[in-house]
Amino acid sequence: MPILIPILQGLRLFDSLPVAQLTTLAQTLSERRVERREVVVKRGESALGLGFLIEGRLQTVDFTLDGREVGLDFIEEGDFFGELPLIDRQSAPEYVIAVAPSRVFFVDPDRARQLMFSSPAAAEAISLRLAQRLRRASRQRAVLALPSSFQRVCAQLALLTQKNGQGQVVIALPPTHQEIAIMVNTSRETVTRTLQFLQGLKVLARDGNALVVHQPDTLQEAADGKVSPTK
Amino acid sequence: MPILIPILQGLRLFDSLPVAQLTTLAQTLSERRVERREVVVKRGESALGLGFLIEGRLQTVDFTLDGREVGLDFIEEGDFFGELPLIDRQSAPEYVIAVAPSRVFFVDPDRARQLMFSSPAAAEAISLRLAQRLRRASRQRAVLALPSSFQRVCAQLALLTQKNGQGQVVIALPPTHQEIAIMVNTSRETVTRTLQFLQGLKVLARDGNALVVHQPDTLQEAADGKVSPTK
Repeated sequence: MPILIPILQGLRLFDSLPVAQLTTLAQTLSERRVERREVVVKRGESALGLGFLIEGRLQTVDFTLDGREVGLDFIEEGDFFGELPLIDRQSAPEYVIAVAPSRVFFVDPDRARQLMFSSPAAAEAISLRLAQRLRRASRQRAVLALPSSFQRVCAQLALLTQKNGQGQVVIALPPTHQEIAIMVNTSRETVTRTLQFLQGLKVLARDGNALVVHQPDTLQEAADGKVSPTK
Repeated sequence: MPILIPILQGLRLFDSLPVAQLTTLAQTLSERRVERREVVVKRGESALGLGFLIEGRLQTVDFTLDGREVGLDFIEEGDFFGELPLIDRQSAPEYVIAVAPSRVFFVDPDRARQLMFSSPAAAEAISLRLAQRLRRASRQRAVLALPSSFQRVCAQLALLTQKNGQGQVVIALPPTHQEIAIMVNTSRETVTRTLQFLQGLKVLARDGNALVVHQPDTLQEAADGKVSPTK
């Protein structure tokens, strides 16, 4: 399926491009649909081009030297991905895997490089995206440095929270227990036990697909080691 | 001390700027000298501007929620730093501390933002720097996910290696045992024991200030868990 102009206009990287240029671009693109768990980018591949997620959710994933999966970051609707190999002309640093059925498209490498640095606005959008990824990587690293698995799970949950339209603190699209486990270097069982403990204290509760955090301060205290199952 | 034009010309970010523009810029800048362990940027500060390291070595450092220091990355001569708050207009994400006596200067925020995105070459240099930092953060994270402290120290050492002019694998400016300890979330004693073990096996040896890695493959195997003090 070809990509429609309004979809391109909705993507931050393209919002300063004139319609004529978008029209030319749109004719060279086509959409790819991927299933949950399908690999979109393989680590070590040379640049496929700049990827865009129109719909769904992707996760960047790596494997430790001893073969365990490590979840790195999520890519949300409207985000672009795959910019690193285009910038430094090295291979893809990680796998990109669909965690929900998704629709993506790629802009070929030469055209993408040109687009990324052709205008100050595009260059700023690229830099902003990299800056956000760096900030997340640094928060993620702070989580990994925590001594107990219980603290790491709580800190990870705190990182995933956001405020919804009603001012509630929620985790809108909670990762599975297994996905959280691979993000914080622990077992699925520990994640399940930690969530049960937090639900028992009414710190958080399921609401449909989302998790509602009723006591964000207590969740943060648990991450800080001030509340724990043994105290 | 004012900054000299040849110093500016030697910095990647400025190498495409015309001399007239560099001259104007140079007049607004002055050098700051910092001692070892002096704080150059405080976490949480708003943007000081874009920093440049003329001479010396800096380290970005954070503290865990429970107060332990975590070494994140090094800034080498000729590198710039402090770009994140300029890009996303949030506060500094980490401390920048001198690990050697250093000379730095800052370009004020408004001028820096203008420079960073004014030409495709500057925008590419900024993106390239962020991309390198992201790749390092992701390798660092892979190290932190290793189960044993011994493996983490070996993997960190392997990450720090480079080839010198004579084709030797070396760690040119080895961090102190304490600095390695805070990078890989372990104790200084464990770092010292690991280095003694590796020196005993003749995997590496001190040569003046540098560490020469005589058996890089064995160092990698130790990082992979295939060689250990108990096997």
